[in-house]
Amino acid sequence: MAEGSPRDLSDPAFREGVLDLLGALAYGELVGFFTIVRDAEGAPEMSIRMRLAQVAVTEFAQYERLTARIEELGASPEKTMEPFAASFDEWHRRTEPGSWLEGLMKVYSGNALAADFYKEIAKYVDPQTQDLVADVLGRGSHVEFAAATLRAAIADDDKVAGRLALFGRRMMGEALSQAQRVAADRDAITGLLVDDGSGTGADLAELTRLFARITGNHTARMEALGLQA
Amino acid sequence: MAEGSPRDLSDPAFREGVLDLLGALAYGELVGFFTIVRDAEGAPEMSIRMRLAQVAVTEFAQYERLTARIEELGASPEKTMEPFAASFDEWHRRTEPGSWLEGLMKVYSGNALAADFYKEIAKYVDPQTQDLVADVLGRGSHVEFAAATLRAAIADDDKVAGRLALFGRRMMGEALSQAQRVAADRDAITGLLVDDGSGTGADLAELTRLFARITGNHTARMEALGLQA
Repeated sequence: MAEGSPRDLSDPAFREGVLDLLGALAYGELVGFFTIVRDAEGAPEMSIRMRLAQVAVTEFAQYERLTARIEELGASPEKTMEPFAASFDEWHRRTEPGSWLEGLMKVYSGNALAADFYKEIAKYVDPQTQDLVADVLGRGSHVEFAAATLRAAIADDDKVAGRLALFGRRMMGEALSQAQRVAADRDAITGLLVDDGSGTGADLAELTRLFARITGNHTARMEALGLQA
Repeated sequence: MAEGSPRDLSDPAFREGVLDLLGALAYGELVGFFTIVRDAEGAPEMSIRMRLAQVAVTEFAQYERLTARIEELGASPEKTMEPFAASFDEWHRRTEPGSWLEGLMKVYSGNALAADFYKEIAKYVDPQTQDLVADVLGRGSHVEFAAATLRAAIADDDKVAGRLALFGRRMMGEALSQAQRVAADRDAITGLLVDDGSGTGADLAELTRLFARITGNHTARMEALGLQA
């Protein structure tokens, strides 16, 4: 929680911002569920099909916790997710993996990038929502398997490294452009971040640091794989 | 349970047959899960995406109950499902819906057809497995929605009726040919049905009646939709 007297859920603008965070995150989990099931269905080995289907259902349970919180706050999950569908679907369309390794890259680095955005916004919401978001994001599932497989493939082949570095930069660039679109469309979520004079939001210097942290984390993840970010 | 002294799970051939039924059914539920998620992802409306994803996860819970029973019987779910993958995948490939209505037809009439096969075989397994199978098959999910939509479309348009009747016959024909393939490959499941002299299996006259019941039920479902079977 930022400094100043905390805003609470009886403030309609604040509540709207909290719901926006929950709606974006819930839709992200639902799309994540679809994506993992598609990977499961396409996997040639029975054991991987079974394992990935299991991972997807765990993701779905997170989606259900988020929609339950949305209902608890008196809103419709459907209507709360709806405004984010276009940006999310567009991001997925523009970062469609061209290979199995790019697919893994998206799991590893794309999920972490999305999580970084949510975590930054979650600093400004009510403590109960904050705990829920932290818990949902803490359950990153098949990320370690993806990282190990990528590291091996990158160490083996310079051309693979070059293509994946490019794909990583594309994911970051497209994420920033969709984040700008959401910020422009959704006053409520922007209102959480930008100080309205109550002293609880971030000031512009803090917003700059927020974007620097997100890009910095992305760079560190790319380097950890042996890639130039 | 058929007449005669019941065979029990300490009989290796009987246990193998019970596992075959569980493996076939579990793989069917897993593929059903994949299929419903694909429909969910393709649905244009957020409310239908949400609803179908929920239905798919319920289907997955049935799959988990079946794999739990397989483990309880000391076998590996992966190895128990594996022998049925080729026949099931082939059936799905040969009955790929060419339209949205054929997709609904597959949900309505294809699921019921599969359930009829399982129910006939379940008559010959141990009571605990029998109860589990009956319970899993009793949870038919979005079948009623499919039937109502189909009935309306068929009543509206004779050409639709003709195409769907053809598709229904194809599903039945392909099911029989895959069932023959499974019966030829899997002595254990055939052994459940065919009397080995212990008096617990079906005799040939009963097997003929079994197939007559399955095709009869299929015909009745087609007619209930307003189709010539």
